[in-house]
Formats: sequence, structure tokens, C-alpha cells
Amino acid sequence: MNLIELLNWRYATKAMNKETVSADKVEKILEAARLTPTSSGLQQFEIIVVTNQEIKDKIRAVSWNQSMVSDCSHLLVFAAWDQYTPERINGMFDLVNEERGFKNEGFEAYRQKLLSMYPQQDPEVSFQHAARQAYIALGTTMVACAELKVDSVPMEGFDPKAVDEILNLKARGLRSAVMLPIGYREAKNDWLVNLKKVRRPKEQFIVEVK
Amino acid sequence: MNLIELLNWRYATKAMNKETVSADKVEKILEAARLTPTSSGLQQFEIIVVTNQEIKDKIRAVSWNQSMVSDCSHLLVFAAWDQYTPERINGMFDLVNEERGFKNEGFEAYRQKLLSMYPQQDPEVSFQHAARQAYIALGTTMVACAELKVDSVPMEGFDPKAVDEILNLKARGLRSAVMLPIGYREAKNDWLVNLKKVRRPKEQFIVEVK
Repeated sequence: MNLIELLNWRYATKAMNKETVSADKVEKILEAARLTPTSSGLQQFEIIVVTNQEIKDKIRAVSWNQSMVSDCSHLLVFAAWDQYTPERINGMFDLVNEERGFKNEGFEAYRQKLLSMYPQQDPEVSFQHAARQAYIALGTTMVACAELKVDSVPMEGFDPKAVDEILNLKARGLRSAVMLPIGYREAKNDWLVNLKKVRRPKEQFIVEVK
Repeated sequence: MNLIELLNWRYATKAMNKETVSADKVEKILEAARLTPTSSGLQQFEIIVVTNQEIKDKIRAVSWNQSMVSDCSHLLVFAAWDQYTPERINGMFDLVNEERGFKNEGFEAYRQKLLSMYPQQDPEVSFQHAARQAYIALGTTMVACAELKVDSVPMEGFDPKAVDEILNLKARGLRSAVMLPIGYREAKNDWLVNLKKVRRPKEQFIVEVK
């Protein structure tokens, strides 16, 4: 693979053909998401993988009726922590210690710092921070799809409260942040498939401070 | 390359050796960032590429004195729009029309929708939304680095207002969202380099709704 080629190959697929993405591909795509770096290594989100057609149809109804939601193979809902809790922070730090087989003094001091800071935050501030981390994984997950020639389309155009309710996310301490239907393009119904990808030229995107 | 291998190879490099990343590699890394998808294709951020040592040192002083900020080759500061303006929105829609060579009715309706919605938003809401898009690029940019065997370390541990001031971002209508020093590891001073990468098992990260 070559990343630039993959980024040029992919596009926001506007029509999908209901074909199923194979289980081994889905596993690789989700593994890329799982390996994605996050702030303090906390992995402040989960991915809800919806294949149930009835649930997909319900979510479509609160997503401006966009067809990809029901015609995708797997609907990935990136759902971020609604608040930092001591349990969540300790859970991750304990797991790291267990996996590495030792305690590190600096790492333990860092745990205490997060414990003294994060759970007291306004939940909205916490969610916004957690949601940003999910977007890092949105980037790597789209690359993972492209590497396997699976189409994907990042979507913010949905009613998050309604999606949270459909998926019962509140009970899991989660809030939907962004969705990524994955599947295969239905080229003949996709207005975007043959249009040129447009980005600002680098002179308007990069500022050098030499 | 294989994305999973790249994600396993990379780690949050805690010490860098001041070696310079070649210009052709930096160009590829920034091109991956530029090609990254964003909400409505607006590319709501710019990347400030700092190589000036004095400026890097100044930023290090407001970044908990983390050595990577001054010892990296290039310090990438992802700076997001501080507000949506009609100029910014129209700029992108006009560019798309120009590059594609025609106007699309649905696309023009979408432009009007954004114009009626975004510039009126609370600037903080706009910035949070724009910053999320920068995080998508943070994901793809780290993959780009790994593909070229360039080390990188995502950093939120800095005083954003101080960084904004050092880089004069307010005048550009930008606010710093996240930083990514890129360069090469100084393994002998890096406490993290040989430690196991730990992630929650997929059973605690993925929820299937079948």
C-alpha cells in the first residue's frame, strides 16, 4: 500500500449496494481502530458495529434519510465516553501495568494527575475531548477500509440524541460522536463517485515557520 | 506496507535525536494531511510547520518542557478555524466548482444550508467542530509518518493560548488544537520505546448489534 494512493482512491461514498464486507476484512478494519493512539492511551470511545437491518433503518430515519446508513454492510458508530470516571481511568492504567508486568513511578504519578483532573470536569468538556480521540480513529479506520478496497463514508449528519437512544448508549456511559457506514459503492446511483476530489492547494493549507 | 503493522510499529516517541526528516518525506506526510477527508470537505484547519529552533524552544517552554518539541525535526501544529465565516465557506465551495468545471444544484443548496447555519454559531462550538476534523488528519498523518519510518508523537500537553500567541494564530483566525512533533527517536533516552503497546481487548472496545 501507499497511503497517498489510498487517500486518493477513497471518497465519501454516497450510495452503497448492500453487499456484505467479509468478516476477516471487518476484523482488520476494527483492529486498526483499536490500535489507534489516543490521549493518555485511554481509548475514550467504543465502536458500535450495527449489522441488524431494522436498527440500521431506524438510524437512517434520524440521519436525514441518507441511504448509506441502511445500504451499508456494517454501520460503525463511534461513541465516546460521556464523562471520565475513576473506574475508567484506573481500568486503563491497571491494564497497562498488568500487560507490562511492572509499575512505573512516573506512570503512577500521571495516573494521579488524571484522576485529580478529569472526573471533576464538566461532562461536556470531557465528551468533547473524548470525541476528538474517536476522530483520530476515524482517520485510521478510513485508511484501513481503503487498504482493503472497502468503501466508507464519514457522517456527522444525524441526530446524536436519537442515535444514542436507539442504541441505548446512555446506559453504557457513551454518546455517539460520528458514524462510518462501510460497504461497497453503488456507482450508478452515486453522484459523487466520478467527481474530482478537491482540496485547498498546499499554499493555503501549510504555513512554514522557518 | 500493511496498516496494522504500521500502527504496531509506531509509538508516542518520548525522546528525539534532532535528526532532520528529508524534505521529500515531509512533503509526503503533509500531502497525506491535505488529502484527509473533513466535514463538508471544508478542511477547517491549517498545519503550521515549525522548523525555526528559537520558536520550537519557545513552544517547548509552554508545553510542560517536553523535549520532543525542541528535539524534533519538524513541529506540526494543527490549528483549527476559530469560526466559520461566509468567506471561508464560499472559498471552498467556489474552489470545488472551479476544479470540477460546473455547478451542481444540490451542492449549491448545501452551500446555502451551511451559510445559514455555521457562521451564526457560537465560536466555541465552531472551533470544537473544526478541531475534530484536525484530529482525523492527526490519524492519517501519523500513518504517513509510520509508512516512511518517521517517528511522531501526538501532544495535547501544551498551553494553547500561549502557542497561539507565539505563532500569531489569532491574526490568521486559527487556534491551536493539537501538535505532532515528527523526527527520529533517541532510543537510549526514551522510557517508552521498549514497552509493550497496550490496548483494551476488542471485547471491551467493540459492541456488535446484530
